[in-house]
Amino acid sequence: MRLASLAKGGRDGALAVISAGGTRYCDAAHIAPTLQAALDSWGSAERALRGLAESLPAHDNLQPIDAATFAAPLPRAWQWLDASAFPSHGALMDKVIGIVPQRRAAPLMYQGMSDRFYGPTEDVPFPAEDLGIDFEGEFGVIVDAVPMGIPAEDAMHHIKLVVLINDWSLRSLAGPEMKTGFGWIQAKPASSMAPFAVTPDELGAHWRDGRVCLDLAVDWNGQVFGRANGSEMEYGFHELVAHAARTRALCAGTVVGSGTVSNANFRQVGSSCIAERRGIEIVDEGAARTGFMRFADRVRMEAFGDNGNTVFGAIDQKIVPSQKE
Amino acid sequence: MRLASLAKGGRDGALAVISAGGTRYCDAAHIAPTLQAALDSWGSAERALRGLAESLPAHDNLQPIDAATFAAPLPRAWQWLDASAFPSHGALMDKVIGIVPQRRAAPLMYQGMSDRFYGPTEDVPFPAEDLGIDFEGEFGVIVDAVPMGIPAEDAMHHIKLVVLINDWSLRSLAGPEMKTGFGWIQAKPASSMAPFAVTPDELGAHWRDGRVCLDLAVDWNGQVFGRANGSEMEYGFHELVAHAARTRALCAGTVVGSGTVSNANFRQVGSSCIAERRGIEIVDEGAARTGFMRFADRVRMEAFGDNGNTVFGAIDQKIVPSQKE
Repeated sequence: MRLASLAKGGRDGALAVISAGGTRYCDAAHIAPTLQAALDSWGSAERALRGLAESLPAHDNLQPIDAATFAAPLPRAWQWLDASAFPSHGALMDKVIGIVPQRRAAPLMYQGMSDRFYGPTEDVPFPAEDLGIDFEGEFGVIVDAVPMGIPAEDAMHHIKLVVLINDWSLRSLAGPEMKTGFGWIQAKPASSMAPFAVTPDELGAHWRDGRVCLDLAVDWNGQVFGRANGSEMEYGFHELVAHAARTRALCAGTVVGSGTVSNANFRQVGSSCIAERRGIEIVDEGAARTGFMRFADRVRMEAFGDNGNTVFGAIDQKIVPSQKE
Repeated sequence: MRLASLAKGGRDGALAVISAGGTRYCDAAHIAPTLQAALDSWGSAERALRGLAESLPAHDNLQPIDAATFAAPLPRAWQWLDASAFPSHGALMDKVIGIVPQRRAAPLMYQGMSDRFYGPTEDVPFPAEDLGIDFEGEFGVIVDAVPMGIPAEDAMHHIKLVVLINDWSLRSLAGPEMKTGFGWIQAKPASSMAPFAVTPDELGAHWRDGRVCLDLAVDWNGQVFGRANGSEMEYGFHELVAHAARTRALCAGTVVGSGTVSNANFRQVGSSCIAERRGIEIVDEGAARTGFMRFADRVRMEAFGDNGNTVFGAIDQKIVPSQKE
């Protein structure tokens, strides 16, 4: 089942169910007004939504989709926790920054701003071009209410939806903030989401051990940038959820991210963020050649299933100066 | 004007206006159902709420207040950004941790979990007693919508309410998380708020240059623990808001905290968190004598105006094991 939030539904979007081909939708407001409302009572909402999804082929009132149809599945969320769970990315970054590589005993995770997620085709405003504007393509999950102290194996059952996220990052600000130990504020503005939030079963064999085993296609200004696969996470999403819930209950609608999708053979498959490509250049050539994004640049992110169809729909966005917002 | 959220109002509380003496309240649901809703349209809501507050002495239907009347002013918020703005605390902690003291060019700030703030008298559950359970008494502000890139002097006008917060902290988990550079997840569970959110004018001369110039009375198990004054912030709240808004717009209802209230003469006035007292002991005596909180311990926080009346009401809470939640 694939769900989405219609942009016409205002600040929290209006819940919709997506057709099998991903080209049409059906309003689901009679079941729950918003995706957050559905997550708040997932037990009953899921059943009704699956019923609607199964009956979709017989519907004659499906609506066509265009670029402006969708907001993010959660245009705002009560919580957004983002990990850095791909060891190939972590080890490279450690090397570039000059940190002694070490196997950490726990996942890396930060609390991100959650009061806004940009929709898949919204322009994204930044205050200046020289902040090291970078994308980070990643997969994420959305949970229902998770009790404090849950073990990872039980946390798996609370993963209700899988999403595709671009975690916008400002690299010039990231290092100084990281050195404070307090994590990122200015370096991590609002993120973006692809339009469809999908149930794990929708991924079939590509949902494995709490990992999204799909290639993440990242194109920068129409050029292939990366095709890294989500399978190489050091920790599965269920382990990330359990880590987050050690000392807090997680509210329904909490979004947990994987961090930049990255593979050990990144020299072959490419990267999901510019920082990683620059890191490879620094290691291989002594200096970074690739610059960060410039205003009017576009980034596109998408993942495809076995049938070649889009799974989450596409993020396809342009960055703009914030004063022109 | 003092506002509060009634616990009977469900997950977001029901908006109420507090009487001058702080002992009675009047429902304000006819103006806005929740404090968040009032903040979302503060321009019109403020006028109506002030009208109601001024007419309160003439009302004959004011309700009495008891310990269970109030939730946190925002039982959940879309964003919680907490600074560490008191230099006496920062310098001591640097010394204890072994960091070379340096004057930082920007405020220290982390993104905290915001999907839950405990009400002033709720029991607070923790998964284990050996996590270094600590309180952090601090002041905070709540803003309406703040545009990206706002200067500090303009940010001052977006500060609509002042609150009193206990930022619960788990010290055993804090150091390792800080070392990752990603900030805190497990070490910073949900915080608590005193019942009344007050407009800055309510503080009179004690609201000065974006600082709450009141003593914060902190009692641990009925013993005086600290009476530090909020005046010694290195950055005013307007500067903290501007720092937060450099690369993001802040949504209405964003809560910004001061960090542990601390004074240069902490040996005389005491501290607002156990970690600071332990730091003083380490510096003065070579080792910490004071332990962290134990289950069934209580902490009380309150601030008083010139007339001796409570300003924000009191936080008065007991900590309990989470399995008994």
